[in-house]
Amino acid sequence: MDIIYFFDLAGTLVFSISGALTAIERKFDVFGASVIAFVTALGGGTIRDVLIGRQPVGWMLDTNYLIVIAVGIFLSYLFGTGVHKLRRTLFVFDTIGIGLYTILGLEKTLAFGLAAPIAVIMGTVSAVFGGVLRDVLCNEVPLIFRKEIYATACIAGGLLFLALSALNVERDAAMLITVFFIIILRILAVKYKWNLSPREA
Amino acid sequence: MDIIYFFDLAGTLVFSISGALTAIERKFDVFGASVIAFVTALGGGTIRDVLIGRQPVGWMLDTNYLIVIAVGIFLSYLFGTGVHKLRRTLFVFDTIGIGLYTILGLEKTLAFGLAAPIAVIMGTVSAVFGGVLRDVLCNEVPLIFRKEIYATACIAGGLLFLALSALNVERDAAMLITVFFIIILRILAVKYKWNLSPREA
Amino acid sequence: MDIIYFFDLAGTLVFSISGALTAIERKFDVFGASVIAFVTALGGGTIRDVLIGRQPVGWMLDTNYLIVIAVGIFLSYLFGTGVHKLRRTLFVFDTIGIGLYTILGLEKTLAFGLAAPIAVIMGTVSAVFGGVLRDVLCNEVPLIFRKEIYATACIAGGLLFLALSALNVERDAAMLITVFFIIILRILAVKYKWNLSPREA
Repeated sequence: MDIIYFFDLAGTLVFSISGALTAIERKFDVFGASVIAFVTALGGGTIRDVLIGRQPVGWMLDTNYLIVIAVGIFLSYLFGTGVHKLRRTLFVFDTIGIGLYTILGLEKTLAFGLAAPIAVIMGTVSAVFGGVLRDVLCNEVPLIFRKEIYATACIAGGLLFLALSALNVERDAAMLITVFFIIILRILAVKYKWNLSPREA
Repeated sequence: MDIIYFFDLAGTLVFSISGALTAIERKFDVFGASVIAFVTALGGGTIRDVLIGRQPVGWMLDTNYLIVIAVGIFLSYLFGTGVHKLRRTLFVFDTIGIGLYTILGLEKTLAFGLAAPIAVIMGTVSAVFGGVLRDVLCNEVPLIFRKEIYATACIAGGLLFLALSALNVERDAAMLITVFFIIILRILAVKYKWNLSPREA
Repeated sequence: MDIIYFFDLAGTLVFSISGALTAIERKFDVFGASVIAFVTALGGGTIRDVLIGRQPVGWMLDTNYLIVIAVGIFLSYLFGTGVHKLRRTLFVFDTIGIGLYTILGLEKTLAFGLAAPIAVIMGTVSAVFGGVLRDVLCNEVPLIFRKEIYATACIAGGLLFLALSALNVERDAAMLITVFFIIILRILAVKYKWNLSPREA
């Protein structure tokens, strides 16, 4: 199994756990928690695929995604809020996940012959719209519109990846550098409470 | 007119009424009520079609769906909350509707060459996501995430239908058995207040 | 640059400003405001394109839309609520925008070989669903379900345009007449506080 596919599935697992825990906190039933886990994990990529016309959408052709999401839901019920003790681990995988989702989304969009700015947007959509859908279904203002520079890290990462590609940096190296860049950006952002909110201005 | 098409339209009518009544209760105007009726009736199938790449989506090719929805809106305004007196009748048609939507969604997904677990998911999406969209547009947490085993009945029905097909049971018989199974499951669930909510545990 | 394309971009600009201002009022950060601006401006056309199977969706093939939206976001931050002083100007462009979006959406749907009633629905979706998505993402009941005859003006305009076309009126003339009709309808509606809400009955 290649490394990118491994991290893709790892990101799916973390997003699934994040979705399931959110739903469990809100006292949704098992079905509701499963839908939220599913939507959080696959929503961003699904929107991207539908907009660029890649149908059936990606996860429909590989049931491993479903299995990984089911495992995430199972773990969430098994450990419940205890999973929160793994906060640091989850944070790392979540960040690797969004980094990878951004780059994979960007590449898939370029592969459809679309322009680079569109690809950066679609990369960001892949990474963050799963969380947006999760929040909309939970009847909340999407967290990402108010907190952290989560999305900005995706955009910056997408631009960096494009720049590295333009400089003919080898793909795997560019991907590695970009994911590290996004991780460091997020760690710094959380540590120093960077955000773009006008309330902090 | 074949029997499946008849129940498909009957289900559309009931979902349309359910949507329109929800909107009227919330004091939406006629336009808002029409949108909600429309989205409740056709939203689930639309999402399924878009995800599997069946475009233009089904209802665009058969204006009978629009006519039926318009009738549902008209009846909702004509009888208003009086329609609630037909609660038992509506419940039966609603249940037949979700049973049929589940099976039709499942079959359409299989026809696109997708795997059985994906087909069960898409059948369930067809049956329940109209209601999810209705609730999101009304700014509420989707009812289905918190109440009744409505969705679970769809999933169980989908699995039963797949099992019957695998056993070479004739299609019409399998469909009839599945719809009856879903109806009985829902009636029992409502009667004995089964649900999957942790609050009831 | 032809006149229709100019008004299309002008409509995009106004919708982008409307979205950005809504987000700024709600204290979203710059990223959130950008998403809302984007979704308000392009959401309606995106839903239409996905439903009729026109992918990649239109704006992905012309980065001018992105530039115009970025300008709208920039202006919103620069002038802030001061933009509201331009209320009258914004109203005119907004109305021209919805008129044009309605007609362009209607024509694109007809071009896909779909029936006239479907085309009127898709024209209306093009014009108003950007605002619906904006409100859903801001966790509010869509304004359009409760206020003004905004959407009704689109539907009436769509029907008028179809009628004029059936009478062999030349396309540019039919478009001009329809847009003027929608503008006058909206001005009268606002002036005389017409709406379809049952609260006013």
